[in-house]
Order: sequence, then structure tokens, then C-alpha cells
Amino acid sequence: MRTLVLCGTPAIGMPPERTRVIDPETPIATATDLGLTRGDGVFETVGVHHGRMLDLEPHLERLAQSARLMDLPSPDLAAFRMAITLAVGDLLDNLERTPVTALCKIVYTRGEEDALAAPPGRPLGFALAYDFPDPTEARREGTSAVTLTRGYPLGIGETAPWLTIGAKTLSYSVNMAALRHARTLGAEEVLFITTDGYVLEAPRSTLLIRQGEVISTPAVTGGLLHGTAQRAAFEAFESLGLTCEYRDIHHDELATADALWLADSGFLLRPLHTLDGRRYKVDERLTTAAIRLILAGTL
Amino acid sequence: MRTLVLCGTPAIGMPPERTRVIDPETPIATATDLGLTRGDGVFETVGVHHGRMLDLEPHLERLAQSARLMDLPSPDLAAFRMAITLAVGDLLDNLERTPVTALCKIVYTRGEEDALAAPPGRPLGFALAYDFPDPTEARREGTSAVTLTRGYPLGIGETAPWLTIGAKTLSYSVNMAALRHARTLGAEEVLFITTDGYVLEAPRSTLLIRQGEVISTPAVTGGLLHGTAQRAAFEAFESLGLTCEYRDIHHDELATADALWLADSGFLLRPLHTLDGRRYKVDERLTTAAIRLILAGTL
Repeated sequence: MRTLVLCGTPAIGMPPERTRVIDPETPIATATDLGLTRGDGVFETVGVHHGRMLDLEPHLERLAQSARLMDLPSPDLAAFRMAITLAVGDLLDNLERTPVTALCKIVYTRGEEDALAAPPGRPLGFALAYDFPDPTEARREGTSAVTLTRGYPLGIGETAPWLTIGAKTLSYSVNMAALRHARTLGAEEVLFITTDGYVLEAPRSTLLIRQGEVISTPAVTGGLLHGTAQRAAFEAFESLGLTCEYRDIHHDELATADALWLADSGFLLRPLHTLDGRRYKVDERLTTAAIRLILAGTL
Repeated sequence: MRTLVLCGTPAIGMPPERTRVIDPETPIATATDLGLTRGDGVFETVGVHHGRMLDLEPHLERLAQSARLMDLPSPDLAAFRMAITLAVGDLLDNLERTPVTALCKIVYTRGEEDALAAPPGRPLGFALAYDFPDPTEARREGTSAVTLTRGYPLGIGETAPWLTIGAKTLSYSVNMAALRHARTLGAEEVLFITTDGYVLEAPRSTLLIRQGEVISTPAVTGGLLHGTAQRAAFEAFESLGLTCEYRDIHHDELATADALWLADSGFLLRPLHTLDGRRYKVDERLTTAAIRLILAGTL
């Protein structure tokens, strides 16, 4: 089940147009939309847990931040907020029962190719809500990953802003290719590392590592995306008495970690039971407690 | 002026559908097309010079090669050949006079998101033909560029195939961001270099350098796209008695080059009159002679 809402005025200052639910099978991007032809746009995926959205505002803020990093016109966040609300509401209305988890993806493109040099143009914005397989088992069982190089040295984004590393762009084909490559190696997920051996992130999620009473995640400076689910998880772990920190994490440290998780909007926290063939402890009680606290944020 | 042709059967083995001219304003990609949401697809841009296509077959071969590198279903090249022919023919029929240069972009996406794991799915294929501003002056005057790091070390593509460096994918947002960055530095073009100082390519073209009687271009192994216009230019320069070679070119060498060009399907050869503020000789006679020989390939 999917609900698609076309965002009437995706950029600030666009003439008001009606934001409306449309058939998700209806094509919406033209052959000259730079989102399609150049992966030139930004997106977010908002989690909907037991019928409630989690962290809508942080996602909207990150959409605006990604747009800034990409020199896109400022997105009309009020219009996107309405589009998401409509899409999620319609999805839930049309499902027989409230799903444990649903997702709502929002996309904002640069629009028509002719508008490349000129401001605004005709950007495309939409929200697509859809139900997601029940994540309960994956949260309990965990998943497996392999490390793959992202090809960059640590911190390259700080000196090379045109690599737009901190932006969540539509140019995700390397992420998808890495996931396919992982599957040929018998793993489900990828943990990207830098050419100098530092840990970055997974193609669609953020890494958290536990060493004793400390939870760490790679520092976001110039190398990766600041995860919304990771931020929610940090709050939860801190409530549970653990210390949380951002820092550069070398790949060699992973061997001595007590536990690893991937954080994202759908699963929230998924333990990594295996990384590069090494087994890690899956702490079901801690994971469950943290997810319960994260979900309290939807109330 | 633009002509859009939807490719009825973009992948081999798809049920035959009618390939047809449609209004270029008609949206063609759905909200779940991975070409739109993940930049997950491949493309080519074929040059049409004085009404004749140049190197159609090498472009189709490279489309198939890009698809292989991206684990996409094999594109139906006969269907794309027909779509391009229809699009270019219709464009020329509808223009009052034959343009010096037109382009035809072909795009082939992975299709619907649900089909991620499964083969074929519903890939999208289209050909978009459009007229291009007369390149004569740019070929004579040349353009300016700055070097920017691509963030990768030389040869990374050989050991990290998931970076899909040799594929011409729809995930081009870094290329576009680099071009915007160049403009803030007062240059029109970018020359990407590796973190270890080797020359790669421009976001939409290939570099050629002349040192005496030798023309060189960066070796394609594991770092960049093999340019179709560059290959045609090599043939032309060889006909003119110059020696052409592929090799690793360090950035330091550029300072002593006699001349530089960017090669692509639209301009064919465009001299670089300035790189990083350094002036280079623009050899109008050699450029014109080479372009004339390249264009002989369209006869």
C-alpha cells in the first residue's frame, strides 16, 4: 500500500498550488527534471511507528540543510509538512490495521534542466508514504554487514564542499551498488570506511558502537550524514545511563566493540550480529529498552 | 525545441510495447522509479552535427557497459536505437533549419523500487533530442577551468567496483555541484583530480593534453569514463600525424603542456585557454582540422 502526495509549492516563493493525493502509479517527473537526469535533489525518510511520526521536524530541518549544501532554493517546509501529513494520514486511513512501521519519503528536486543556472525553476516535491515490513524480528535478531571503502579519506567533505558529503542527495547509486556487492559476499548491509581506515556509515543508516558504558558514533565533520535516528538513539541511551559521544572511530577498534547497531528511520536500531565474519553480541534487552524510549518521542 | 521518445522496451526480454513520440512536458517517471529516487540508472548523450548522428554505436555500447557495471538488466539496444532515431528525426523535422549541433540524451533506469531485488522490473527508457547552442565560438575561443579534487585516489575503481566509477550513471549531483563551485571561482569548467594529484576528467567531458607531437588523455583504468568524443578526437589527431596515448597524467605536468582541450559530444573539442589562472595557447587551426576530421565520421 502506498499513498503519493504531490507537494504543490516545494520551494519558498512558488505560486501557491494545491497539494494533493494522487495515484502513486501516475508519473510525476519529466524527462528534463534534474532529479531524474542528474540525481540532483535531496530527500528524507520519516518513520511512522504505530501510526505516529517520529522526528518530523529534525527531518524537515535536515532537508533544508541538504538543500543549502546543494545550492537549491529553500524548500517550503510548511508545504512539505502538509504533504507528509496528508500522505501518512491517507495511508493509515486505507490500511486495515495500523502497521508497526510505515515510512514516508519526501523528495525535492532541482526541477527542469533549463532552469539550471537560474533561480527557482520548477522544482518537484512529493511525499510517498508506504508500509514497511514489521521490523520486530530484525530488531531482535540483528543483521550482518561487510566493510567496504567509500573511496574517500577522512574529513574530505570539510575541504571539498562540492562533494556534498553532508547532504542527503538523490545521487545514491553508489550506496545501492555497495548493498548489491554486500549480498554477493553473503552480507545484508555495508559499513563504509575511508581510505585511511576510519568508519563512516552504512548506505541507509548510521553506525553506533558500544564499548563498556560508552556508545560512540562517527563524528559527522566532513564525512557523513548526521543521522536522525542516531540522535534519537543517543537520547535514549543517555536516559539509560550510558555515555554517548561523537568521535573518529578507526576500523581496528571495531574488533574490540561489545556491540554494534545500525540506526535508521524504519528499524530505529538494528543490532549487527556479524561484521566481516566476526560475531558480535546481540543485546536484546538493551535494544528493546532503547527503542521503547525512542518511540516515547512519538507520543 | 525538444522531442521526447519513450522507449517501449528498454530492457531485453520486456514485452514489446510501442516506442512513441510524446509531449516533452509529460511526466514519465513515477515516485518509485529508482532513477528518480536513487539516481539509479545510466545515460548517454549522442551528438547530432549538421543533422547527422556521431558515434551512435559506441554510445549504445557504452550504455550497455554502464548497465553491466551497475548490474542492470541488459538494455535492448535495438529499441534504444529506434528511440534515438525517432527523436532526432522528429526534432530535425520540426526545426526551421538544421542546427549546427543538437544532442540526444538516452536514459535507462532500474525502474520501480519494489523490483530492487528481483530481475527486470519496469525499467524506464527514453530518448530526448534537443538543439544545442551553436558551439562554433566556444570551439574557437575556448573555455576556462579550475582543478578540484574528486576525493578518490588514482585507480580506486579497480579495487572498489561498487563505486561504479567507469559507469555513466544518473548520480551526477557531485559533477553538477563541482560546476557550480567552479563558477564561484570565476571558471566555467572543472578538471577533477585524484587525492594523489593525478588528472581525471571534467564533469561532462574528457581532457586531452598536447606536449609537442604527442596528445595524451588520462588512462581509463579504474578512475574515469572512456570518452566517446575523446576516442574520435584521437583518430582525428592521429590522421593529422600526431601520436596519441593513454597514460596516468600527474597534475604537475599540466604546467608544461602546450595545449589542453575538453572533448564531449556537443562541443567535440573545446580548447582550455585557462586552467587555475594559467593561460594556455589556443591552436585554432589544429582544433578546426581535428573537428573537421571528427565530423567526417558522421558522413
